[in-house]
Amino acid sequence: MPNRMRLFTPGPTSVPEDVLIEMARPVFHHRTQAYKDLFSAVNKLLPEVLQTKNPVVTIAGSGTAAYECAMINTIPQGGKVLALSNGKFAERWVTIAQRNKCDVTILKAEYGNAVPPEQVAEALNGKSYDAVTLCHSETSACTVNDLEKIAGHVRKTDAILIVDGITSVGAIPVKPDAWGVDILVTGSQKALMLPPGLGFLSVSEKARKKVETVNQPNLYLSLPHYLKSLAANDVPWTPAVTLVRGLHKALEIITQEGIENVWKRTSKLARATRAAAVAMGLKVFSNNPADSVTGINYPAGFDDKTFRGALRKDFNIHIAAGQGSMEGKIFRISHMGYVDAIDTLGVISALEIVLRQQGHTFNFGAGVAAAHQELAK
Amino acid sequence: MPNRMRLFTPGPTSVPEDVLIEMARPVFHHRTQAYKDLFSAVNKLLPEVLQTKNPVVTIAGSGTAAYECAMINTIPQGGKVLALSNGKFAERWVTIAQRNKCDVTILKAEYGNAVPPEQVAEALNGKSYDAVTLCHSETSACTVNDLEKIAGHVRKTDAILIVDGITSVGAIPVKPDAWGVDILVTGSQKALMLPPGLGFLSVSEKARKKVETVNQPNLYLSLPHYLKSLAANDVPWTPAVTLVRGLHKALEIITQEGIENVWKRTSKLARATRAAAVAMGLKVFSNNPADSVTGINYPAGFDDKTFRGALRKDFNIHIAAGQGSMEGKIFRISHMGYVDAIDTLGVISALEIVLRQQGHTFNFGAGVAAAHQELAK
Repeated sequence: MPNRMRLFTPGPTSVPEDVLIEMARPVFHHRTQAYKDLFSAVNKLLPEVLQTKNPVVTIAGSGTAAYECAMINTIPQGGKVLALSNGKFAERWVTIAQRNKCDVTILKAEYGNAVPPEQVAEALNGKSYDAVTLCHSETSACTVNDLEKIAGHVRKTDAILIVDGITSVGAIPVKPDAWGVDILVTGSQKALMLPPGLGFLSVSEKARKKVETVNQPNLYLSLPHYLKSLAANDVPWTPAVTLVRGLHKALEIITQEGIENVWKRTSKLARATRAAAVAMGLKVFSNNPADSVTGINYPAGFDDKTFRGALRKDFNIHIAAGQGSMEGKIFRISHMGYVDAIDTLGVISALEIVLRQQGHTFNFGAGVAAAHQELAK
Repeated sequence: MPNRMRLFTPGPTSVPEDVLIEMARPVFHHRTQAYKDLFSAVNKLLPEVLQTKNPVVTIAGSGTAAYECAMINTIPQGGKVLALSNGKFAERWVTIAQRNKCDVTILKAEYGNAVPPEQVAEALNGKSYDAVTLCHSETSACTVNDLEKIAGHVRKTDAILIVDGITSVGAIPVKPDAWGVDILVTGSQKALMLPPGLGFLSVSEKARKKVETVNQPNLYLSLPHYLKSLAANDVPWTPAVTLVRGLHKALEIITQEGIENVWKRTSKLARATRAAAVAMGLKVFSNNPADSVTGINYPAGFDDKTFRGALRKDFNIHIAAGQGSMEGKIFRISHMGYVDAIDTLGVISALEIVLRQQGHTFNFGAGVAAAHQELAK
């Protein structure tokens, strides 16, 4: 028997069997009451998971599509953007701003550092921005930004705050309405426990007012079209019916556990993994690690492809490489979605075995023991 | 036992059980050799089904996303477009051209009429267009345009021909390379027998040369990004992994039957349906009916919602309403994808029963008999 596949990549993540089965049911048409009923149920649960009373738009596309939709519909050509950047995904949002001829000011922190909120306050001081862009949990650098504090500064200005919550929504506390996040973007294949193919964005009243003033050419990503349809539980273009069906099931699972319990579980798995890393003599990457994904520095001389290859070959365990400037320097383990304490203990065990095989010297068993202690708390 | 659901809408169409099951298998990561192998297999089969040697790009999104990708990456702002229009989808492509500040000349035929190729030749004469846009099979009007002849005129000019093949690819003969179609767009949820969520476009060398000269802002729909990745069997953004997996299975099914046999089957089902309509005393809508979807005029006094509602309630058979200016005037039955002679005979039987119930007088049984005769040929 081959080993069971265990997916610890920070997206796609494991999809619960119940969700897979739901998506395998026969396809039905989307211009029907049946679809309206499904979408209406989704649209009741999505705001609960995103912790917002604002409308949440669903797009057939990746997280990049949803983030681009957020930006191009709220920032006019030549509009001023303050882009907070500490990783590869934030860099992608800068690319979108630049392609769309925005006037972009980049406030940069190194990979592994959070963007200091006080620097954001300084950058905003006396300036007039249309939007501030930010990755909440920067997946590439396994680092979380202090969204609450940053939002506190942005909400005092006329700028809207557009947040990439792709690996924070459903994983770590995000409270857009309480904190003042105008647009919160996420994707299906992370903590929402679905296959890739759906993107989401919540849109505040402040953001909707911006939308009214912006005239952008793209039709597929036209936010007014999505918002108008959403008000009638409808969609402007053909939706990804099977994924939306799976979404409903996944949202039911999440809301049954309760979003705060999901956050606690994710945090516990992250703490256990970090404790294990330290116990194995490894350094956790990032000065402000995100609970959704843990980055761990390779021991000197380790080769990324060989290490992750052995985990795949010997255990069918899939972890992720570093991205952007971190490629080859770290490996990454996801704690999002359909993953529990036993899964996490398992991945630590496999890590220990492969680390030892490939020449890292440490107190063998210490990682598992440390994780076990944390998980039992 | 409830009646088995029978989906005769012109998208989404029925998805084969083998494809549903394939998509229900555990999700895996897309930055892996496993995904490259899958995508490479897909990229061998897709050009066969689209009958082209040109690269075929796969996008996570609807057919609208793929068509917009085709237009915005090949036509510059202010570029001249000749838009051939005889239905709702062609009108959508005009909207995209206008939003993107193209200079659009519309050559219009009424719903139910094909665009006369000689009028296209006249319109092109002495003019210089960047692109000609066309729906091959106009789903809203159940009408097929003479693509071969139109392409013959366009290929003599510098304009590229962008064809909406969303309900023609895999249903009726389309030979882009032989005829001179530069971009052929299609979607997953029609003759490709998949759930909605994927769009496709083939891109000729003539079109790729245009792409090099156009600088458009959108990142998600940036064709250079897709083409560059495709050359390495890779994707620029997270792909819809489960749908791509289903795509591979569906393409296998199609190529095993053989694309020419698929065309023949579809055509036979359409002929049987049209013969049945006439035998039931109804008029087939369109002067040039497409074989992918048949439009049938309602008898005087019939109410669309009541008629289709009874088919759903009594038989769990789902057919489509008219679209655009045909709403309430016709109903539409798909022949695309996972549908065979027995299915088609079944829908005719149900139509007869509901037509009689709701007051249409005709020789009861004549529709089934006529369809049966055609199907047995």
